[in-house]
Amino acid sequence: MKTRDEARSLDRDDPLAPMRRRFALNPRTIYLNGNSLGVAPRAAVARARAVISEEWADGLIGSWNKAGWFALARRLGDKLAPLVGAAAGEIVVTDTLSVNLFKLLCAALRLAASRNDDRRVIVAERGNFPTDLYIAQGVIDHLERGYALRLVDDAAQLPDAIDRDTAVVMLTHVNYRTGFMHDMAALTQVIHRAGAFALWDLAHSAGAVPVDLNGAGVDFAVGCTYKYLNGGPGAPAFAWVAKHHQSTIVQPLSGWWGHRAPFDMDPVYRPDEGIGRMLCGTQPIVSLALVETGLDVFLETDMRAVRRKSLALTDAFIDLVETRCAGHALTLITPRAHAQRGSQVSFAHPHGYEIMQALIARGVVGDYREPGVLRFGFAPLYTRFVDVWDAVEALRDVLATQTWRSPEFAARHSVT
Amino acid sequence: MKTRDEARSLDRDDPLAPMRRRFALNPRTIYLNGNSLGVAPRAAVARARAVISEEWADGLIGSWNKAGWFALARRLGDKLAPLVGAAAGEIVVTDTLSVNLFKLLCAALRLAASRNDDRRVIVAERGNFPTDLYIAQGVIDHLERGYALRLVDDAAQLPDAIDRDTAVVMLTHVNYRTGFMHDMAALTQVIHRAGAFALWDLAHSAGAVPVDLNGAGVDFAVGCTYKYLNGGPGAPAFAWVAKHHQSTIVQPLSGWWGHRAPFDMDPVYRPDEGIGRMLCGTQPIVSLALVETGLDVFLETDMRAVRRKSLALTDAFIDLVETRCAGHALTLITPRAHAQRGSQVSFAHPHGYEIMQALIARGVVGDYREPGVLRFGFAPLYTRFVDVWDAVEALRDVLATQTWRSPEFAARHSVT
Repeated sequence: MKTRDEARSLDRDDPLAPMRRRFALNPRTIYLNGNSLGVAPRAAVARARAVISEEWADGLIGSWNKAGWFALARRLGDKLAPLVGAAAGEIVVTDTLSVNLFKLLCAALRLAASRNDDRRVIVAERGNFPTDLYIAQGVIDHLERGYALRLVDDAAQLPDAIDRDTAVVMLTHVNYRTGFMHDMAALTQVIHRAGAFALWDLAHSAGAVPVDLNGAGVDFAVGCTYKYLNGGPGAPAFAWVAKHHQSTIVQPLSGWWGHRAPFDMDPVYRPDEGIGRMLCGTQPIVSLALVETGLDVFLETDMRAVRRKSLALTDAFIDLVETRCAGHALTLITPRAHAQRGSQVSFAHPHGYEIMQALIARGVVGDYREPGVLRFGFAPLYTRFVDVWDAVEALRDVLATQTWRSPEFAARHSVT
Repeated sequence: MKTRDEARSLDRDDPLAPMRRRFALNPRTIYLNGNSLGVAPRAAVARARAVISEEWADGLIGSWNKAGWFALARRLGDKLAPLVGAAAGEIVVTDTLSVNLFKLLCAALRLAASRNDDRRVIVAERGNFPTDLYIAQGVIDHLERGYALRLVDDAAQLPDAIDRDTAVVMLTHVNYRTGFMHDMAALTQVIHRAGAFALWDLAHSAGAVPVDLNGAGVDFAVGCTYKYLNGGPGAPAFAWVAKHHQSTIVQPLSGWWGHRAPFDMDPVYRPDEGIGRMLCGTQPIVSLALVETGLDVFLETDMRAVRRKSLALTDAFIDLVETRCAGHALTLITPRAHAQRGSQVSFAHPHGYEIMQALIARGVVGDYREPGVLRFGFAPLYTRFVDVWDAVEALRDVLATQTWRSPEFAARHSVT
């Protein structure tokens, strides 16, 4: 891709191009931040109106059954399943990623202890998204049973860090900062060979890259619906449990939605025999229902097509930045190898924060993460090749004019 | 209230009558189930549209700050605070009631242990809503530290059950089945005299009856926004912590929203110094925003006025049922004493289930709870005296004709 015309030509030939019309896009923005918050499906407003006016206002309490509210967490899980290599009855869309991680970490530690109580280590990466580490710290601190978090600084150190002390390895498939993607199948094998359980966080994977949870033999997974799945701001997260673990795991957030017969008003908790035991309390139905409008768009394509375009977009972006913005101290921190790349590209720059502010002021919305990282997410359902071109041109202009050095910019953005 | 005309006259003189227009009510229904799911504020559809079209679709990621999404859990907590005798900075609207109960039970047990590690008992009522008991069972089972749940069968047994072994007393202020209301201030004193902490569940109290958390010296509380507060199906719940406990409690669901600086990407969890440490993961913004449309209606009145009408409605209902439906084996199980009554009335009847089905078929929507309990909730913001009259007339008709004995009814409702 050497010219804007060539970008437009790629868009004309793009089999996913029609999907873009399914979203209500801000016309003043080139949005490269779907890795943080996905965009709004056009169907979302009408769906919210139907849930509020027809199901809630008119259907009232009867909608728990008639409108399928009770079944929604499982029904959406089944709809999401093909995107991550899962089967029906293996996913619930519920609560937040942090809460689901808490449930599954506790469940995994308990399952590990039931087999061998000497395993007291959770292995993770120091560069993981902080909430994952915070949750592990909360679990460890709260159990007071001598569990420990073993953090590695580099993915290459993982095989050596996973040993006979390890109960669970908690990894995020695609790193939020760098876009580095693990080999899920290979690492899960390493984890299992060491006798530990594999818990994968798919926050930056679901809807972004092909995932095959069952194919890779993973034990547990959590993920996010508000990024590449376009489920809405803070939309409920998901939890996946391999079928063979479902009836044996015990998770501590034993609320009534996880009971096998919630309306029996049984005073004793008896968990659902399947994935239902990952549920806890009553779910926020309006936000949950909107998740479906995001998932429905994926029904018109498949993750192989999404991946093909994702790699073409990120390849083009890397190539254009490196050629058209050469000599500006930008360092690619996302892997060049396709097998190690998610659907985002990150560059480090000493003035990363200021550059991103200047880009956003020009309508190119990526985001910034400490220290010095410019993140650009590429969502094949709505990102065009011409967006890639225009974003790089804006970046080139910001770098060439060093906009952030102007007194006006400094005053507006409190740059010191 | 002896005639329908008298009911209409009471409605004409009712200072809360204008509030009814703030809700989108189903015109075919007399809805006496706001104790289970509140009705939809008229403002809800427009608010959802604004959040989806303006804040999400157009404002995109910037809305976390510009539209106040990050601050919403606390801002709504401050708005809710006056309804339950709390101050600003004491409540967050977040997660589910079950999840918040887990956080606070764990926090309370830990605080108790830090003072006296011999206290290993959680006191509760067997007749509490099951999810509260399930969560306590989950906490106890998970901690494996020898905690125990001590259940009493009758509120009168509580003072004797609370002793030097007691760490926490977890009580629901208004019972979901009977509508019985505890004396929160007196019981909190009993709990404190025994050296234990008081954790109150306000699911059936917030927006239904006056509550004075600070006045009663309560330690911790949770509550629901989707019943009398009309926040929407499954709308996020709330957690309250007395100011003097906020900086000392430790809760295990230590997600990034509870960190004192979530965007520093600190690998170590350091909790917010105030109520913010009760937050965990990213919240479902559309559902959360709708809570405000319910709270806003309460700004036009106060809980004394709500309570005055609530007692008038429930008094009238009890009186009419007992006079006009006399001789039909209905037993009042809600206290007659105002000080012990929430905003619902429950009657037991051997054919409770069938009677409720017949009532619902006639557009009078209460609900049924095992064993044999007909529940009727009265929400003073939208329930009229004429609704009370008409509901009792429908009940009288169902009882007189014994509708549930007809073969058609049995066939339709699978009554055996």
